[in-house]
Amino acid sequence: MNLLEIFLSELLGTATLILLGTGVVANVALKGTKGNAGGFLMVNFGWGLGVFAGVYVAAKSGAHLNPAVTIGVAINDLMQGKHEFVPGVDINLGTIGLYILAQLLGAIIGAVVCWLAYKQHFDAEPEAANKLGVFSTGPAIRNTGWNLVTEIVATFVLVFVVILFAGSPSGLGPLAVALLVVGIGASLGGPTGYAINPARDLGPRIAHAFLPIKGKGSSDWNYSWIPVVGPIIGGVLAAVVAPAVAVLAK
Amino acid sequence: MNLLEIFLSELLGTATLILLGTGVVANVALKGTKGNAGGFLMVNFGWGLGVFAGVYVAAKSGAHLNPAVTIGVAINDLMQGKHEFVPGVDINLGTIGLYILAQLLGAIIGAVVCWLAYKQHFDAEPEAANKLGVFSTGPAIRNTGWNLVTEIVATFVLVFVVILFAGSPSGLGPLAVALLVVGIGASLGGPTGYAINPARDLGPRIAHAFLPIKGKGSSDWNYSWIPVVGPIIGGVLAAVVAPAVAVLAK
Amino acid sequence: MNLLEIFLSELLGTATLILLGTGVVANVALKGTKGNAGGFLMVNFGWGLGVFAGVYVAAKSGAHLNPAVTIGVAINDLMQGKHEFVPGVDINLGTIGLYILAQLLGAIIGAVVCWLAYKQHFDAEPEAANKLGVFSTGPAIRNTGWNLVTEIVATFVLVFVVILFAGSPSGLGPLAVALLVVGIGASLGGPTGYAINPARDLGPRIAHAFLPIKGKGSSDWNYSWIPVVGPIIGGVLAAVVAPAVAVLAK
Amino acid sequence: MNLLEIFLSELLGTATLILLGTGVVANVALKGTKGNAGGFLMVNFGWGLGVFAGVYVAAKSGAHLNPAVTIGVAINDLMQGKHEFVPGVDINLGTIGLYILAQLLGAIIGAVVCWLAYKQHFDAEPEAANKLGVFSTGPAIRNTGWNLVTEIVATFVLVFVVILFAGSPSGLGPLAVALLVVGIGASLGGPTGYAINPARDLGPRIAHAFLPIKGKGSSDWNYSWIPVVGPIIGGVLAAVVAPAVAVLAK
Repeated sequence: MNLLEIFLSELLGTATLILLGTGVVANVALKGTKGNAGGFLMVNFGWGLGVFAGVYVAAKSGAHLNPAVTIGVAINDLMQGKHEFVPGVDINLGTIGLYILAQLLGAIIGAVVCWLAYKQHFDAEPEAANKLGVFSTGPAIRNTGWNLVTEIVATFVLVFVVILFAGSPSGLGPLAVALLVVGIGASLGGPTGYAINPARDLGPRIAHAFLPIKGKGSSDWNYSWIPVVGPIIGGVLAAVVAPAVAVLAK
Repeated sequence: MNLLEIFLSELLGTATLILLGTGVVANVALKGTKGNAGGFLMVNFGWGLGVFAGVYVAAKSGAHLNPAVTIGVAINDLMQGKHEFVPGVDINLGTIGLYILAQLLGAIIGAVVCWLAYKQHFDAEPEAANKLGVFSTGPAIRNTGWNLVTEIVATFVLVFVVILFAGSPSGLGPLAVALLVVGIGASLGGPTGYAINPARDLGPRIAHAFLPIKGKGSSDWNYSWIPVVGPIIGGVLAAVVAPAVAVLAK
Repeated sequence: MNLLEIFLSELLGTATLILLGTGVVANVALKGTKGNAGGFLMVNFGWGLGVFAGVYVAAKSGAHLNPAVTIGVAINDLMQGKHEFVPGVDINLGTIGLYILAQLLGAIIGAVVCWLAYKQHFDAEPEAANKLGVFSTGPAIRNTGWNLVTEIVATFVLVFVVILFAGSPSGLGPLAVALLVVGIGASLGGPTGYAINPARDLGPRIAHAFLPIKGKGSSDWNYSWIPVVGPIIGGVLAAVVAPAVAVLAK
Repeated sequence: MNLLEIFLSELLGTATLILLGTGVVANVALKGTKGNAGGFLMVNFGWGLGVFAGVYVAAKSGAHLNPAVTIGVAINDLMQGKHEFVPGVDINLGTIGLYILAQLLGAIIGAVVCWLAYKQHFDAEPEAANKLGVFSTGPAIRNTGWNLVTEIVATFVLVFVVILFAGSPSGLGPLAVALLVVGIGASLGGPTGYAINPARDLGPRIAHAFLPIKGKGSSDWNYSWIPVVGPIIGGVLAAVVAPAVAVLAK
């Protein structure tokens, strides 16, 4: 794999994930859609199956699709003496940055395409908050500390289990990650809407800021750092705890 | 495989897909059924599991079940130097036409059987629009351009990921395609009801036109070309983009 | 395998299927349960996962769990020159009867255990029709001919696809059958509640007739032959059509 | 495997299971969450996918995550002449106690983390009963005998099928157990909320008792023994019946 392949793989995979993920929120939340008020479980399946499709698209680069996963996998791999993300691609600050840049650009693209696919329903929707809600997460009850805790916990579970998948012989691959994301959404998505992925939240928020969305309101930049910092902390914690547990148990 | 086998395989597989797919809409939409108002996620699972069953039925012919997939796979295969759909069946205009004809006939048959299975509920349903809605898609907000965009985007995702499945070692096979269709439906089905398959829409519309359905209204031929043309454009784009990305990244 | 093993395997597998299947209906339909009014998709998943569990329990005997499957598999196997259900067990009228007897007894047992598990909610439920609805199917609109058609169509799909699974390399096994049943339920369960299995309907109806259920009404024997005869016709048709198609295509 | 590894594996796996399981109840039941009133099927998927994640986390120790499974597997293994849970770990009262202690501590930890993740919604929720309901099960209709019956039946199905999974070549592994738990919840969770696991119920109840939850009420210790004793009886019965059936059929 060369670096351009890595870049395109993560970009396209994350774009697919975000298109389907923001799409299901648009379907449930915007005025006049066929899935309007379809329920939170439908949102969970939409995001989980967005991950499913995105993992197939980005299989060649390891399908991180998420800076918290990239950082977590990098730390965990280095602690275990592995030095490559995939054959031929060293783990270093440059490649970590490349993965994250691709994910962020992919997320922006996915959100733009979602807006195009639901253009008329964005136009028809009267509430500005519902429009932003398609792009980015927001807390049910706003509180910096507790919102951070929720994002840290949810992302810890994601990255911790993904790291453990690597050593598992089950062979479910993309389906396992998809179902994990359905479960995290259903179980830990209640307070903050489960960003659990800095690119998933920041990319669409950037798109929300620059797109000419009819009747749009604030992009809520005050909140925007929480779904970035929380997932990164959760991912780092998971990467550190996983091998520490293994060492303790020896 | 000979051509008659290809024909029967695609015909039976698409009939199975359409029977289960139109069936779940009948169950949710028609008066007095046990699944009435069962929700959009149930519709998504019904169509996804219709694909699941149809893929098993049509496994021998590659289980396209969809002219957009047939065209997309043909273009992609030819670009990659493959010249057969399945062993012994060349890719050419004749075999492409055979696949599409079988899919269209299968879709008509599936819709007729669905009508028989739900006969009494078609009779009991007072709204003509709900009857047509079982057979064919219609837009939530009618607009030629934006409706086309939605169908192109949704079908692009379908064919793009299906092409990428081919190189994937996950072994989920029919389940992977089924879940992909559940996800596309939940996420991108809001504006147009996700035809994403010209045969899925045109076949049942033809059935609606000729069947003696009690109290039926217009078959909405004005809209009928959008769920044919949109998915074909989306499938062709996916087939062209997939290898172009691979070339760029070399 | 000896015949006692076959008998116990089918009996326990069918009991598991019916316990979980009738259980989900009890949960959705009876007064005061935690899943009350949980929706038709939940019913579909309950029955599908009942099949999933039952197939594991009865794996040794081939996990028919359904007289329509036993008869369909027998006809199809004999047409294809196979003479054993499983190694050491010939296909003949005696073994077919043994499978069906075990399935019917298992279904009765499963329904009795469901009644015990939901005893207090059967007592609390005021509507006699809801109590019978836990045990056996009934039509949304009563009509001998059309109710038969619906059961024939739905069972045809079940047996036809199950026969095709046998030649498929996907390896999903019990999951494939479970998902097929979820799909058939969602898509074709609207008019009659999808018996698609004579033992599934007749066994619990017998249990309903002899159990001392508080405030129970009629066991509706007038309708009882339709979910027996319809599925058998559907299963036989599927068994005949599947190889006929294969011959035609040669 | 050494005993510390077993301990950490079961502790972390059960903590993951309980975090996701209690989390989905918090999401559905507590005031102001995004999944509020999301339905019983969403609860079933949350618990099932909690099992899914927990099984990956605890794969090294066999992923019991449940004292009823540990006891059932121990009895069944000893009856079949197996003397180790996993290579190097004998089955004896000491290791059985170690598994159960790890599961109970893990369950307490999982419940504490769930409380942290949903802290603001616990504070906002006015009903004390809804707060306890996130932690532990309670019966829809309180009755010692019938509540015990329901827990015995549901846990019997769980342990019986899990024991049968061991001899199955399907390879679905964690997914099979997850789907089984989704199905048992949908089908048999109506009367008591399906503890089917002594650690799942007792651990969070202990957490409920000692945590400084705002406005909390009683921890309902009167009921607490039923979701401990019922599942153990169900697990022991399953372990005894499974090989007894095999012997009978020889």
